[in-house]
Amino acid sequence: LNLQAPLAVAWVGEVDGLLRLIDQTLLPQRLEYVDCSSPEMVWEAIRQLRVRGAPAIGIAAAYGVCLAGETLARVAPHARPAQLQTVIDYLASSRPTAVNLFWALDRMRRRASAVPATASLQQFREQLLDEARRIQAEDSQSCRAIGRSGAPLLADGCGVLTHCNAGGLATAEYGTALSIIFTAQEQGKRLHVYVDETRPLLQGARLTAWELQQRNVPSTLICDSAAAQVMQEGRVSAVIVGADRIAANGDTANKIGTYALALLAQAHSIPFYVAAPLSTFDLTLETGASIPIEQRAAEEITCGFGRQTAPRGVEAYNPAFDVTPARYISAIVTERGIIRPVTAQEIRRTSSALQA
Amino acid sequence: LNLQAPLAVAWVGEVDGLLRLIDQTLLPQRLEYVDCSSPEMVWEAIRQLRVRGAPAIGIAAAYGVCLAGETLARVAPHARPAQLQTVIDYLASSRPTAVNLFWALDRMRRRASAVPATASLQQFREQLLDEARRIQAEDSQSCRAIGRSGAPLLADGCGVLTHCNAGGLATAEYGTALSIIFTAQEQGKRLHVYVDETRPLLQGARLTAWELQQRNVPSTLICDSAAAQVMQEGRVSAVIVGADRIAANGDTANKIGTYALALLAQAHSIPFYVAAPLSTFDLTLETGASIPIEQRAAEEITCGFGRQTAPRGVEAYNPAFDVTPARYISAIVTERGIIRPVTAQEIRRTSSALQA
Repeated sequence: LNLQAPLAVAWVGEVDGLLRLIDQTLLPQRLEYVDCSSPEMVWEAIRQLRVRGAPAIGIAAAYGVCLAGETLARVAPHARPAQLQTVIDYLASSRPTAVNLFWALDRMRRRASAVPATASLQQFREQLLDEARRIQAEDSQSCRAIGRSGAPLLADGCGVLTHCNAGGLATAEYGTALSIIFTAQEQGKRLHVYVDETRPLLQGARLTAWELQQRNVPSTLICDSAAAQVMQEGRVSAVIVGADRIAANGDTANKIGTYALALLAQAHSIPFYVAAPLSTFDLTLETGASIPIEQRAAEEITCGFGRQTAPRGVEAYNPAFDVTPARYISAIVTERGIIRPVTAQEIRRTSSALQA
Repeated sequence: LNLQAPLAVAWVGEVDGLLRLIDQTLLPQRLEYVDCSSPEMVWEAIRQLRVRGAPAIGIAAAYGVCLAGETLARVAPHARPAQLQTVIDYLASSRPTAVNLFWALDRMRRRASAVPATASLQQFREQLLDEARRIQAEDSQSCRAIGRSGAPLLADGCGVLTHCNAGGLATAEYGTALSIIFTAQEQGKRLHVYVDETRPLLQGARLTAWELQQRNVPSTLICDSAAAQVMQEGRVSAVIVGADRIAANGDTANKIGTYALALLAQAHSIPFYVAAPLSTFDLTLETGASIPIEQRAAEEITCGFGRQTAPRGVEAYNPAFDVTPARYISAIVTERGIIRPVTAQEIRRTSSALQA
């Protein structure tokens, strides 16, 4: 793996530092960073998709909590956790679907509540920064482990189809779905990746194609609507995608178009894999029916790329995610191994180690 | 039906007239026309998709033959049909998949060869123009008849999903798939149309949404990748698309993404209909496997909308069409009624009236 790849999310400095994000809305034309010095700037960066990808959102939000120093300075030591909670609730409102956001913020909350009231503000903030750094480091390790878990699923010479971006830009490093591809390539397997462009925001064309190019993975960009054709031509022997939230039964919310791919993969007898760290599982939800689906602005469809592509006044429906029922998922690849078959029982078994 | 809708293809004047096309690449921002005064201009307009849609391409090419006056003036009367054949072959090279192009040009060839050598050049050209006008008038009537044939398939209050543009802009008038929708609405049925935007060239967003808006048909634009979600939510009770070529067994070439929609419709137990005039059938091809699929430039994907949306140097695969096997097609709606089940035998039965 090319360890020189730029990080989507990085903390610069110590307690009084700032959060540096790759502004992913500018890729692939420009690699530019946005420095966030307040929770408000992090909220905006998440909402505007300057940082996106379920694990990366969680990490960014955790660091966003570390930027609450000014707010914390206003209250007495014993009131710090409650004061921090308003920042946490605010950051949690940035996007509704990816559960890693709430998971990371909950870790920050628990860490804050464990700090003794005798601690100085500096010490309190050091604890927060330590927790955010742990979340980031653990995600990095999880992604590496997902790569190792999943690489055996890909045979030498095979074609792989992916959707949206589940790469290093969506995580601390390496990615989830792409980590499997990078690891298999590291192991000497020759792969060819078909990349769905992923309308409306083209994360596949803009981000995944860019990451694959950076790591010299042979790839071909296609329109989302060409995936079935590519499968029918026998070019693809596996589909791998990331996830934004996985319910207790394995139903998986991911970028709009994922559910269609799962159905198309089944129609062509191609295995359909989801790659995600355990932080993406939401065991409080029995099925995917309870996952809130973010609805985004019609303009993402009608006015993409700075040009009006539909008549003025046209109505558009723009759900950012869909839910793929567990029965269409061949396996879920986690940092603790492969969940197969995808059932509530197998998910409980794999995740229980984490809960302990 | 709003008979005031602008025509995609119109001949202006008499024998020395010109072909006026809506420049569909400029819609929906601007309704502008391009006047073609030579076969070369018609070839370019077809190749650049200023005029598109299988029936409309056929009509435009037929009129393109009528613009060969200068070429014909150079040869003796008995050499006119051979001279015209070079123009016909040239126009046939503009696009490879839609069979209506070759069908219309073949009608022009046959008409030319039937003109007696004693005819003046003016008379010869009048015969050509008459044939092109017949092709256009017949397509207009066919589209109307397709609308009447297919309207009973749509129940009051139902949702319909369509892909690309099979409307008035793709034909002489009314359209194929959209003619069914227009006719059902004329009959007082309340419909809601979901329009796939249809990447890479967005014929759904740019053209179909525009036509529906013009005719006051309630509609919602979606990304191609959201079609499965819309089906899963129960919003759609029929899918209707057009066709570029239909083989003898019913396998249907249409805009890339059609095959995926057929599979997704089947997975949701939603009927999938193809609407096309009999000129779209190519009975010389036993199955869809022999239909040539046009490959278009990578830039349509990587540089759409005048902006680079993928890294420089990325490889793209851009088939303009795919082939939907007959077994996924619930029925084909033609000007001579509904073909159901979609089998070689039923197709022969319906088309034999035409052959006679």
